[in-house]
Amino acid sequence: MRQAGRFLPEYRAMRARYGFLELCKNPEAAAEVTLQPIDRLGVDAAILFADILLLVEPLGVGLEFAKGEGPVIHRPVRGAVDVARLQPVDVDSAVPFVFETVRTVVRALGGRVPLIGFADAPFTVASYVVEGGASRDYVHTKRLMYEEPEAWHRLLSVLTDATARYLNGQIAAGAVAVQVFDSWVGTLSPADYRTFVLPHVAALIKAITPGVPVIHFGTGTATLLPLMREAGGNVIGLDWRVELDTAWASIGHDVAVQGNLDPVVLMAKPSYIRQRVADILRRAGGRPGHIFNLGHGVLPDTPVDHVKALVDMVHEMSSK
Amino acid sequence: MRQAGRFLPEYRAMRARYGFLELCKNPEAAAEVTLQPIDRLGVDAAILFADILLLVEPLGVGLEFAKGEGPVIHRPVRGAVDVARLQPVDVDSAVPFVFETVRTVVRALGGRVPLIGFADAPFTVASYVVEGGASRDYVHTKRLMYEEPEAWHRLLSVLTDATARYLNGQIAAGAVAVQVFDSWVGTLSPADYRTFVLPHVAALIKAITPGVPVIHFGTGTATLLPLMREAGGNVIGLDWRVELDTAWASIGHDVAVQGNLDPVVLMAKPSYIRQRVADILRRAGGRPGHIFNLGHGVLPDTPVDHVKALVDMVHEMSSK
Repeated sequence: MRQAGRFLPEYRAMRARYGFLELCKNPEAAAEVTLQPIDRLGVDAAILFADILLLVEPLGVGLEFAKGEGPVIHRPVRGAVDVARLQPVDVDSAVPFVFETVRTVVRALGGRVPLIGFADAPFTVASYVVEGGASRDYVHTKRLMYEEPEAWHRLLSVLTDATARYLNGQIAAGAVAVQVFDSWVGTLSPADYRTFVLPHVAALIKAITPGVPVIHFGTGTATLLPLMREAGGNVIGLDWRVELDTAWASIGHDVAVQGNLDPVVLMAKPSYIRQRVADILRRAGGRPGHIFNLGHGVLPDTPVDHVKALVDMVHEMSSK
Repeated sequence: MRQAGRFLPEYRAMRARYGFLELCKNPEAAAEVTLQPIDRLGVDAAILFADILLLVEPLGVGLEFAKGEGPVIHRPVRGAVDVARLQPVDVDSAVPFVFETVRTVVRALGGRVPLIGFADAPFTVASYVVEGGASRDYVHTKRLMYEEPEAWHRLLSVLTDATARYLNGQIAAGAVAVQVFDSWVGTLSPADYRTFVLPHVAALIKAITPGVPVIHFGTGTATLLPLMREAGGNVIGLDWRVELDTAWASIGHDVAVQGNLDPVVLMAKPSYIRQRVADILRRAGGRPGHIFNLGHGVLPDTPVDHVKALVDMVHEMSSK
């Protein structure tokens, strides 16, 4: 899960110096932010710090990070004409700074822990591009699916191609595994996922450099997990709304899983966190192929010492 | 599902004349809004128009409907001291206008269709009371659960008692069934639901006037459905993220279900809506105990003629 962020004072200090996109585009600064959680928390892997929308900017839809409002897209894609107007994305010239960040991080890590690359999945990126920003009901996104399915599939193909090249560029630069985040896909029914999303995620994962492990993550996906597994990935992410043992059994123990602590549990005192960690480890049953993780990202007000305590207790309790 | 609302021009006309709370508190106006969808859409039941937070106002937490922002609670409940400070709610003196609205609606309906009463479930009401308004991550709500479970249970008991008296008052005034909306409960893990919510919903449903059917509804509840069923209700609501046949089988065909069209489908053209209705009816399999409905409320920009077309096609296709 993304582990750099506002809960870390050293991250907030960087954000006081750099605008958000500026930070993502400065390889030295982005590398520093990527590395911050490693020493501070003792986690077992570094996760590339990058925004999910870096790939959206070169599409020419007018991306802007408005203060306090998250991303705003000034020319949202609402129909076939808008899709046809999208700029082709030459990943190497569009986001060279991301690959430079990867190289910088890998150099600085010197093999201490691996670096995991990351990108958002086509549906989740499309949801921003179509809605024009964050959304609750995904009305425009679903309307495009239902009313203009060809334009929808064209849009997802464009995003899938660019995302595959983006992830393969991160791998070429030194990432040893990649995460595909389909954060908002839980808004879909299983039938809609199968028709409008699965073929594209499957194509994306198939296009990733062979041999590199892929972590496939979403939230609110209780009914989508078997379909996400079908789409691909060596590891399937589980949010906290599912029970780890039941969910793992439902998709098969021949695939690995990642999860599944509710991030809000980290607001409680460490003795309570410990009970919840014990429950997850009990459900994982010591089986190989469980990566302990949160069910979604660390929340901004989370006490840093609670996150550190979590990492320590997982190391201690899972080595038993 | 709530069927009066902004998608109806006659509702918008009423809102131009009345503030939101003002509309809820004026029995003649609230009755008119309750009745608007009956003639316009041809639905099979009327749903009481009332806000979920009418019961919150008498608790003394400083409820206000800020323009365009939804409800704001000026003194949110964050711990045991705040819970102890809550005002006892005498339902009859606190919300007499709701019962008067029920009587007015029942009189006006003259038996054409039944009236369904409605209230939010204790967890969902508590989430507003604790967060101070709408929320995405429910950080304060869960923190209260985890850190001060006794205060949490005390809060939910207070809300459960008031809600039971509120629903029984609606029944005494003429509602022939009631809906319990636990709209935001899908943010919880099954274990948290069982510990922190289920006992209260069970107590609420048990306290409702015997013989009156209870519809128990939530969203994002794929993993909670068996527990919601255990908590009670004659009808379990299904949002669109579950497949109706699978979900119904998982909770047992001896309980009725309501659902489960994605409200966004109503944005698409009627020929497409028809395909989706056919799929739901096929999954319901002509079994008694399926109430066709949306998976959540009608969205504000929904074309009225699409909603009317939906009602007509459900009547036509389900009578075959």
